[in-house]
Amino acid sequence: MRLISYDNQGRAAIGVVTSADAAEFVDLGATGFSFSTDMTGLLAAPGGLAAAKAAADAAPSHAVKPLAGIKYLPVVPRPPKILCLGLNYADHAKEGGHAKPEYPSFFMRGATSQVAHQQPIVRPKVSIKLDYEAELAVIIGARARHLTKADALACVAGYSCYNDGSVRDYQRKTSQWTIGKNFDATGGFGPWLVTADELPAGCAGLRIQSRLNGKVMQDANTRDFLFDVVEALCLITECMTLEPGDVIITGTPGGVGHARTPPVWMAPGDVCEIDIEGIGVLSNPIAGEK
Amino acid sequence: MRLISYDNQGRAAIGVVTSADAAEFVDLGATGFSFSTDMTGLLAAPGGLAAAKAAADAAPSHAVKPLAGIKYLPVVPRPPKILCLGLNYADHAKEGGHAKPEYPSFFMRGATSQVAHQQPIVRPKVSIKLDYEAELAVIIGARARHLTKADALACVAGYSCYNDGSVRDYQRKTSQWTIGKNFDATGGFGPWLVTADELPAGCAGLRIQSRLNGKVMQDANTRDFLFDVVEALCLITECMTLEPGDVIITGTPGGVGHARTPPVWMAPGDVCEIDIEGIGVLSNPIAGEK
Repeated sequence: MRLISYDNQGRAAIGVVTSADAAEFVDLGATGFSFSTDMTGLLAAPGGLAAAKAAADAAPSHAVKPLAGIKYLPVVPRPPKILCLGLNYADHAKEGGHAKPEYPSFFMRGATSQVAHQQPIVRPKVSIKLDYEAELAVIIGARARHLTKADALACVAGYSCYNDGSVRDYQRKTSQWTIGKNFDATGGFGPWLVTADELPAGCAGLRIQSRLNGKVMQDANTRDFLFDVVEALCLITECMTLEPGDVIITGTPGGVGHARTPPVWMAPGDVCEIDIEGIGVLSNPIAGEK
Repeated sequence: MRLISYDNQGRAAIGVVTSADAAEFVDLGATGFSFSTDMTGLLAAPGGLAAAKAAADAAPSHAVKPLAGIKYLPVVPRPPKILCLGLNYADHAKEGGHAKPEYPSFFMRGATSQVAHQQPIVRPKVSIKLDYEAELAVIIGARARHLTKADALACVAGYSCYNDGSVRDYQRKTSQWTIGKNFDATGGFGPWLVTADELPAGCAGLRIQSRLNGKVMQDANTRDFLFDVVEALCLITECMTLEPGDVIITGTPGGVGHARTPPVWMAPGDVCEIDIEGIGVLSNPIAGEK
């Protein structure tokens, strides 16, 4: 099942993309579906995903609508936490001048940094050093602490694409990367949540790409994670509780803009796409801050 | 006005501490107060703080209750963002081996890391290196971006005490401190929000202390901030939007446990207090993870 968050006349709503060509979706709100209209609320509700599937399967024809023209929201508009793994592919660690790590470099993004599929990623007034980072997003569906390798994946609701957009000069103003990862509307998240049952366990073995104006900039495979989804879940929950709606973004492979000679920055008028095999394509135009 | 968040039969509630000796509070829910019972919702509602004050001033006697025995919640139980300044006092930067910074080292905490006044700060199973950090918390009451020195403080609803509890070995596993700052129930936040009108502008010139089992461990003054509240607000909103309920914690002075010889760690049975002049005392016992 593919779930979208979208703006339905100013309110967050959830849809289920039903047609294979992604031309149509079921507006859950038009089916009599009684669960939350917010993705975090839906994920937190016991049986929420199963109820969404049942409602979509039985949807009346008036609840089936065209996807073209809808205004997407970030897949989870307001995640309780967005936890990010830095340096999770050996080639990206190397291109940034970092040793191969023995533990992930965790940092966090806030919800204000997110931007939906098809909405503009915003280059701020204060920097031109806006970079893309193709990442697999893991979306949590159940509270979890002290996960083990055997049970870790049970807390995962699904997966999506993330563009961990980074303002590189701010990211490197100090040793802490956080500020450069939290500019408004720099973190693309979409187009949809694909439930875990439709993907390989831990999303292993999937091709992941970024493209800038159609040109392939990053091209890797999630089998090259230094810390795979299971390991990341175990390491995180050794320290903290994961909650429904939390998002983990799993690091980016080599090929980012700042490591190129000359560097490549995203600029107004560009289009950046993140494409993960079996999930879909997240596409964002770039715009200048107004 | 002093506002508390507390647990009223399993639900978040807001109270106004009315007596000078903090023996009593007004249960806003018993006054017919119609705004949100969640602090973030109250702060986001136009006129919310003024309405809370009016309701407290006109409270019927049955709405006045003793503070003793209530179960506090973190002042803002679920902040949209908790943004932290590292190395914001020169003496603490020096004791950690860092140069005097030209820009704050920002990182973030998640809501799952918070713990209320009087509730136990939890030492995790995986480490004994649990340290205190006395900090002033700034609580945001209005959306803000691109603040200037002249208007920055208008977005501040009030202030509180924070214990930026840190698991030092995890904080230093990599260059990114985030994971050591996000263990469950390590960030004490309370006892209450004091509205900005009752404190000096930007909380400048206030004594700030931590005490472990009554012994003074940190003793400084907010006039020694490297980046004061106004500067921090300007720097943050150059990058991102602040929202009602967001919390900024402003860094800790010298005297933390890991910089002592021998180091001092918080252990089960200890009590740690953060005391800020004009605000109050945040007190937390330490407990071992179960």
